[in-house]
Amino acid sequence: MMRKLGVGLIGTGFMGKAHAMAWRSAASFSGEVQPVLISVADIDGVAAENAAAKYGFQRWTSKWQDLIDDPEIDVISITSPNRFHAEQSLAALAAGKHVHCEKPLAPNSDIAEQMYRAAEKAGVVTQVGFNYIKNPLLKHAQTLIAEGEIGEITGFRGIHAEDFMVSPQVPWSWRLDPTGGAGAVADLGSHILGIARFLLGPVTELFADLDTVVKQRPERAGSSVMKSVEVDDIARLTVRFARGCAGYIEANWVASGHKMQLGFEVTGTQGSLIFNQERFNELQLFRFDKNEASNGFRTIVAGPDHAPYGLFCPAPGHQIGFNDLKTIEILEFIESIQSGKAAGPDFKEAYEIQRLVDASLMSSRERTWVSL
Amino acid sequence: MMRKLGVGLIGTGFMGKAHAMAWRSAASFSGEVQPVLISVADIDGVAAENAAAKYGFQRWTSKWQDLIDDPEIDVISITSPNRFHAEQSLAALAAGKHVHCEKPLAPNSDIAEQMYRAAEKAGVVTQVGFNYIKNPLLKHAQTLIAEGEIGEITGFRGIHAEDFMVSPQVPWSWRLDPTGGAGAVADLGSHILGIARFLLGPVTELFADLDTVVKQRPERAGSSVMKSVEVDDIARLTVRFARGCAGYIEANWVASGHKMQLGFEVTGTQGSLIFNQERFNELQLFRFDKNEASNGFRTIVAGPDHAPYGLFCPAPGHQIGFNDLKTIEILEFIESIQSGKAAGPDFKEAYEIQRLVDASLMSSRERTWVSL
Amino acid sequence: MMRKLGVGLIGTGFMGKAHAMAWRSAASFSGEVQPVLISVADIDGVAAENAAAKYGFQRWTSKWQDLIDDPEIDVISITSPNRFHAEQSLAALAAGKHVHCEKPLAPNSDIAEQMYRAAEKAGVVTQVGFNYIKNPLLKHAQTLIAEGEIGEITGFRGIHAEDFMVSPQVPWSWRLDPTGGAGAVADLGSHILGIARFLLGPVTELFADLDTVVKQRPERAGSSVMKSVEVDDIARLTVRFARGCAGYIEANWVASGHKMQLGFEVTGTQGSLIFNQERFNELQLFRFDKNEASNGFRTIVAGPDHAPYGLFCPAPGHQIGFNDLKTIEILEFIESIQSGKAAGPDFKEAYEIQRLVDASLMSSRERTWVSL
Amino acid sequence: MMRKLGVGLIGTGFMGKAHAMAWRSAASFSGEVQPVLISVADIDGVAAENAAAKYGFQRWTSKWQDLIDDPEIDVISITSPNRFHAEQSLAALAAGKHVHCEKPLAPNSDIAEQMYRAAEKAGVVTQVGFNYIKNPLLKHAQTLIAEGEIGEITGFRGIHAEDFMVSPQVPWSWRLDPTGGAGAVADLGSHILGIARFLLGPVTELFADLDTVVKQRPERAGSSVMKSVEVDDIARLTVRFARGCAGYIEANWVASGHKMQLGFEVTGTQGSLIFNQERFNELQLFRFDKNEASNGFRTIVAGPDHAPYGLFCPAPGHQIGFNDLKTIEILEFIESIQSGKAAGPDFKEAYEIQRLVDASLMSSRERTWVSL
Repeated sequence: MMRKLGVGLIGTGFMGKAHAMAWRSAASFSGEVQPVLISVADIDGVAAENAAAKYGFQRWTSKWQDLIDDPEIDVISITSPNRFHAEQSLAALAAGKHVHCEKPLAPNSDIAEQMYRAAEKAGVVTQVGFNYIKNPLLKHAQTLIAEGEIGEITGFRGIHAEDFMVSPQVPWSWRLDPTGGAGAVADLGSHILGIARFLLGPVTELFADLDTVVKQRPERAGSSVMKSVEVDDIARLTVRFARGCAGYIEANWVASGHKMQLGFEVTGTQGSLIFNQERFNELQLFRFDKNEASNGFRTIVAGPDHAPYGLFCPAPGHQIGFNDLKTIEILEFIESIQSGKAAGPDFKEAYEIQRLVDASLMSSRERTWVSL
Repeated sequence: MMRKLGVGLIGTGFMGKAHAMAWRSAASFSGEVQPVLISVADIDGVAAENAAAKYGFQRWTSKWQDLIDDPEIDVISITSPNRFHAEQSLAALAAGKHVHCEKPLAPNSDIAEQMYRAAEKAGVVTQVGFNYIKNPLLKHAQTLIAEGEIGEITGFRGIHAEDFMVSPQVPWSWRLDPTGGAGAVADLGSHILGIARFLLGPVTELFADLDTVVKQRPERAGSSVMKSVEVDDIARLTVRFARGCAGYIEANWVASGHKMQLGFEVTGTQGSLIFNQERFNELQLFRFDKNEASNGFRTIVAGPDHAPYGLFCPAPGHQIGFNDLKTIEILEFIESIQSGKAAGPDFKEAYEIQRLVDASLMSSRERTWVSL
Repeated sequence: MMRKLGVGLIGTGFMGKAHAMAWRSAASFSGEVQPVLISVADIDGVAAENAAAKYGFQRWTSKWQDLIDDPEIDVISITSPNRFHAEQSLAALAAGKHVHCEKPLAPNSDIAEQMYRAAEKAGVVTQVGFNYIKNPLLKHAQTLIAEGEIGEITGFRGIHAEDFMVSPQVPWSWRLDPTGGAGAVADLGSHILGIARFLLGPVTELFADLDTVVKQRPERAGSSVMKSVEVDDIARLTVRFARGCAGYIEANWVASGHKMQLGFEVTGTQGSLIFNQERFNELQLFRFDKNEASNGFRTIVAGPDHAPYGLFCPAPGHQIGFNDLKTIEILEFIESIQSGKAAGPDFKEAYEIQRLVDASLMSSRERTWVSL
Repeated sequence: MMRKLGVGLIGTGFMGKAHAMAWRSAASFSGEVQPVLISVADIDGVAAENAAAKYGFQRWTSKWQDLIDDPEIDVISITSPNRFHAEQSLAALAAGKHVHCEKPLAPNSDIAEQMYRAAEKAGVVTQVGFNYIKNPLLKHAQTLIAEGEIGEITGFRGIHAEDFMVSPQVPWSWRLDPTGGAGAVADLGSHILGIARFLLGPVTELFADLDTVVKQRPERAGSSVMKSVEVDDIARLTVRFARGCAGYIEANWVASGHKMQLGFEVTGTQGSLIFNQERFNELQLFRFDKNEASNGFRTIVAGPDHAPYGLFCPAPGHQIGFNDLKTIEILEFIESIQSGKAAGPDFKEAYEIQRLVDASLMSSRERTWVSL
């Protein structure tokens, strides 16, 4: 028996389009629960109308509250500017709707805490759009670690580096507004912190050094009026995990030449794993082997052995893309709604990640370890 | 003014699903011409009905001829088994419909010729699904070559290798039926031959050595009755291009460890290009440089500078996937219909590729060069 | 006019052999100053005698003091166990001989300081065997940075990771003796700290977290008596350079799968450099370029453009090996003696590196930043 | 009991120096048989005198015949210009001396045949300097193949590509003199043909297409008088091996960007091997595995498990260099002399390789398969 799931989308920018397409692709893949695109909201009504036509929503509105009030809508997908995430999420939760919200969930962990507690109270399912974590090979890495394939874990090194902020001509923007939270450690660091937790579990202590490399930027594009930058361009974190091992995590948006270096190395007593999002259909695995003369790091290529890759292609090596990760995210959210068990990262997990971001700010400011 | 384009799809297997999803994604991206999913046909009516529901077709049928007769349908997308491609294409062309057909177009160049001539006569637009050729970085490679960035071309080495036929337990199948054409040189070789033509233009002469590595296979899965294999597992071609340079092309479906090694190296007097589909969001470029001490092959990472990557993601390094290549294929087909100018590979181009496959069979059999 | 340089070697183990061969190879390459192998000392007289015959020393002795007293010997090469480095170096310096000593120079910076001051007083040339730093491509990297090719430096990430201590069966040894200094941070960290200083200059502040992963080891090979390990297996350092940028440095001898991962990434406002000793004939360079669509990290391959590679081979891409780095080290030492200007790393530099190691121990113990 | 082996060297150019250093390094490594550098000959007496001093020969001469007549000399190392190889080798063989000769042994297989028959008659040991084949990882590859680790061999692809001839400004030279033999197929092709035979055994049939890309070159550097080029810049060979499989081999000295791309891929029914001299301390191995989800090509890093790497360094991943390959060559030659059993490639093997070069010329000229 097929069950319909009414979807309301807030926002029609890049992530709005990505969500709309992911919901539609999910409809082709999903099982009993079939998403139906009900309505799309954008403060710019024309944008909303166009989006409805392009992506196949039944109706549109310029007031997001209409979606909250719409009884046909079961789930709200939030892709509005960050500063609206809390208000919209809380309204949707109060109306008993499931919520899928883009990251960052909130500018700090206090607000994130309110949000996850509201979700718990509402008894609905939540998910936060950490995209990259839905890679089938990351799931494989998690399984290999959990099953002890690389032995007891001895260390972690993780990085999320891009270079879109390296030019001093990139103007001041909401990304640099300290009232919205931290800089690179929030924007990029949250991804690698989430992956660290996904693979190795909770972080109990961290030491951070936050560095602002470009000290001032044009107030707006082309302006000669300069504005001071207060948030971090590079964050360097030494972390200790509850499981006993330690590691290093870096977030860096001035890493010239790197477009999407979201990578890690996990070492264990029996082997190691290496991953880099720039080649995200590959995972490197080393395991000690009796025949040392023929051993080495091997390159695992994504394929149908790594679910749900097979949904997208029946043959290995053909590669899934960034938007397919978003589709997997939505598919898992649908399954969560069906099962009532969050696939994650949910609001609670986003809160835990936000706590690490907040702790990084405090540690760097006070030049000391911070316990969590 | 938006113009609707009625789409009829034949086949609901893996490629049917891929087409359906690509048409739908294309609807989100395309401009004035908006595809509308009218009807889907499958000899198995239940499959057709399910596909209609999943992918959003307005109706379904178990008779593909219904699509030909449907006045709302402007274009037929063919994903049926290879042996039906000619009959269905010719019927659609006769009805004045645009045709998008999966490769191989035909088992030999005589039939392919009939088909492309029928298309010319009908005055419609055709396209054949060579997937990989729609990669934005291949377009970039083509442009670099055409603009002389690597100088005068001196050589080409191309390969399409996979390993799905290496196990002698893989049973005999339609792929091995010599009445359907050649083996690896048709199935895989057509891709790399198409890319060679795309980058360097026509081949005027070739010498081929076709090799059957697994001499017999079970009649069907698990059977102990063995059947002789007559088609090639590996094809090795020495080729000469009209532009004056020569090269080597290999098709190989017993290449252990390779899942999707569709790659090439083009060398010129001023530089070189290297590509491999297993990392298809990367292109290697070498150009001679005044500062030799700091020169070397550089890795170009796909991004919005390589249209139409930007349709899928606004940031470089995030990677498009296999299914996105199919969406680009459909988008370009829609543009072709709009402009009346084939984006290719059209039926004529598929015929030219088929001629190279046919010539390979003849060359290997007669152990001599064959002119085209 | 050729000038002879009498060489005395202490020690005939692996590094003794490496030195002997490097001195001999240097003789084939060097110019006016021609090294002559005078005498070799080993407490095991038979080993000394054999080494003399194999490597072509004129005489041998079981007493290293004989070399100090030998008027034909101008330079002493020290490859004895670490605990003898100070005594032998000081004796050689007191006798006015030039000294080439294997790393580590000393177990702590106090002793290292005595040694470098003794060298200054003696007015002779010293050098410490940091091997890897003599790579022509590291010199190239240093030049690129110094000339501003990658802009203002914004960050550094360096690592020296191997896996020879990962097995808990590796017994306790001098490497783990805390009276000899630290663990991985001294043994491996000194290499990457030296490279960091070589490329970017002095470190002014550091924060370290030292981790002992294998808590106890067999007293000796095969023994069931276990001995506690007090030194670090992994050291994680956050550092600040005098030039204004910051970075991360890791030393790790339990990094499963890595045999010689001595690598770094330097990022600047105009580009980046990436290096890994496991492919030490390659250097990756990224620089922002007007033509972004064809830009990317390029792989520079070592060749005659990177002096003194050309001494070893007239053609690029042929690759020099580990022992060639040792030969370059000796060649530069000979040039230093000739010019009176240390090529480095000399005793003073080894002292500076040792200070960083000492500071790491203190920082980790006190859980605080340490200024230098 | 140590036995002395008197060495005479002809030639003091680049390869002369490489031989001298290799003989000296070999002295440090070898066992019972200890090479002693007796005399060096160069038509330029001053060069000979300098070489004697630098490399430690006891005497020198401007007449190579002096070495032949010298009773203290047991082995002649020939590094003179190619056109002297035959005369000098034959004289040395006639005098009962062992001969180590640089490649190419001879301009054609007739002369090579005379030479190997003379060696057989003389009952001495010969070796030809194919350098790269002495890589410990190639020996490992050979062993893996021989032991069936990758199953029955199904195909080979080999290439030796460099770019030192790509500029049309590179003048005409002895390399291009057709009386000295072929072009790239002789100069570079002989290396990859030798490796193909080393790994897979004899070639029984080949088809070649030889291509001259730069049709004319300055008579000499800077000259405006142009001279026609008659030899191949690129050679493309389809080959069939006696063991039943086939393959492709390319020699190319106009391959822009490649400095030392001497590589191959061997595929078998159970796995594959990939190698490239540009990273010659690495070998890629794929083997089918029960756990497909964690399988992939693995990178084997050279180490002491791959004899005789351990002679050069006790730790893996430190890398040997090009000159170390030459030392291994000499060490194996010394062992051959001691055992009376050629380590190869000896004159007979060089003759077999030369036959393949000759057959390539004939095949390309006659546009037909040639049997061997």
